[in-house]
Amino acid sequence: MFQKIALIGIGLIGSSIAHAVRRNGLAQTIAISTRKPETLAEAEALGLGDIYTLDPAEAVRDADLVILCVPVGAIGAVVEAIGPALKPGAILSDVGSVKRHVIRVCGPHVPAGVHFIPGHPLAGTEHSGPASGFAELFANRWCVLTPEPDVDRDAIARLSAFWAAMGSNVEVMEADHHDMVLAITSHVPHLVAYNIVGTVADLEADTQSEVIKFSASGFRDFTRIAASDPVMWRDVFLTNREAVLEMLGRFLEDLSRLQRAVRVGDGPALEALFTRTRAIRRSIIDAGQETSVPDFGRPHEPAPILMPGSGNGENKRD
Amino acid sequence: MFQKIALIGIGLIGSSIAHAVRRNGLAQTIAISTRKPETLAEAEALGLGDIYTLDPAEAVRDADLVILCVPVGAIGAVVEAIGPALKPGAILSDVGSVKRHVIRVCGPHVPAGVHFIPGHPLAGTEHSGPASGFAELFANRWCVLTPEPDVDRDAIARLSAFWAAMGSNVEVMEADHHDMVLAITSHVPHLVAYNIVGTVADLEADTQSEVIKFSASGFRDFTRIAASDPVMWRDVFLTNREAVLEMLGRFLEDLSRLQRAVRVGDGPALEALFTRTRAIRRSIIDAGQETSVPDFGRPHEPAPILMPGSGNGENKRD
Repeated sequence: MFQKIALIGIGLIGSSIAHAVRRNGLAQTIAISTRKPETLAEAEALGLGDIYTLDPAEAVRDADLVILCVPVGAIGAVVEAIGPALKPGAILSDVGSVKRHVIRVCGPHVPAGVHFIPGHPLAGTEHSGPASGFAELFANRWCVLTPEPDVDRDAIARLSAFWAAMGSNVEVMEADHHDMVLAITSHVPHLVAYNIVGTVADLEADTQSEVIKFSASGFRDFTRIAASDPVMWRDVFLTNREAVLEMLGRFLEDLSRLQRAVRVGDGPALEALFTRTRAIRRSIIDAGQETSVPDFGRPHEPAPILMPGSGNGENKRD
Repeated sequence: MFQKIALIGIGLIGSSIAHAVRRNGLAQTIAISTRKPETLAEAEALGLGDIYTLDPAEAVRDADLVILCVPVGAIGAVVEAIGPALKPGAILSDVGSVKRHVIRVCGPHVPAGVHFIPGHPLAGTEHSGPASGFAELFANRWCVLTPEPDVDRDAIARLSAFWAAMGSNVEVMEADHHDMVLAITSHVPHLVAYNIVGTVADLEADTQSEVIKFSASGFRDFTRIAASDPVMWRDVFLTNREAVLEMLGRFLEDLSRLQRAVRVGDGPALEALFTRTRAIRRSIIDAGQETSVPDFGRPHEPAPILMPGSGNGENKRD
């Protein structure tokens, strides 16, 4: 599909692209560049590509497709560095979670004749780094492309076909609209998850290890989301501020109403909301975006008990 | 371990106890009673017990152990109904998520000579009903018992051994303390999850199916928690109001601070929080309360694409 693909940045997303390109035979050569020598060495040890270099401009030379897989906050500087080395007719894309900001900071450095098509695969896990990637990450997940209106349609079709070949469903969207939709489906949920884990972390001194011990009662689901890459998420909130604050505002208004329902003991209001939300999950499962097995299919086998002496606590009153 | 166990209520927890009792040979006879004839018929069709009756007083007659597996809001009336039929020396327990309220409403109806030991297994999935139970649900999960100080220590030891035999780690705790710890590890996380799914449900009309489509970007994890049994959760918030409002207050204070960090673009503060929260998850995994596999082990196989025509959306601009 492409002669040479360059991946700048080789964390969870970059390494998953490398695996998927390899498995599906989507390029002859994969060039990998990243900022830290130890990360590059790890990628090389894993055999993720064919060319490894610390110089992103060298990696992108002669590449037909360049995908920037670095945190959104670093992306402008990268495009400034590689701009002069980009091949005319090449497609330049990225995987950042915020799109208007990417267009704003990259646009000025993209040479004429290069097709700049920002992208965002809506896929990930809480793990990060070159060893965390796997070829199936994008299977049946959406990839949103947000080209500006003047971008070559043929280039868009080629990049769409590339993502489809990795298993994605591709959607083209206006950048601002992407940022607003993602603010509520992704950014605010992450902010809330980080926040509640933070609230609990503050309590921990008082209640010792109880919060960890009893995390299976709901809290631990939040900790998965709140274990995602800190730098990536810092950059998301720094670069999608307006949309995040707008959606956070709506969330807080609704939470005030819910807080009041708890305070005045409004059972019917609580039950109505809790019933309505169940239907949303059903739609997500029906849309093939989630598994219907209980607990996401989390293992329920008897695991080794790792806190010796913590069972049978009936003598705690002694 | 017991001659006859009576389970009043046969949803996810009741049916999981039935499976675990059977598998581990913890009782000779399991009597099952529930309010709705169709639920009782379902339990009987599943072969969960030995005796099935709509009359809870009949179910508890001669039972050595009675476990109330009904929503917290219904529990007082049940104990009032079965009180006179309870055998002297029997252990009476429950599985409710709130403990002070249970003691307050049940206590007056418990006859002298019956050992009342409220309990709370910290285990569950988002599924409900008699068919959703399985024997491993309690394996390596905590079960908290909250007997009042005057309860017979031997009875507490027997109930602890029963939960341990089902795979649980048992902890004895003061009821008010339980309610406060669970408010932050379980009740507030559920409230927040329900709230964000509600916020999204309100947006849906505007953004059509986008929220569902793009749910894999974080939101779908919240929908699992927000798919739990509505009546059970309504009752939790009606009966643990004080502790929930206290912990929700702390959560909101922290969220204000985080909202401000986003508004003023305080990158170091954001990164510091996001790094700190990652460590919490590591402790939960180390404590054996969570799996370390990415995405909880959620399947990443290429699933059938259920939205025909939704891929390759590059013509959306037409």
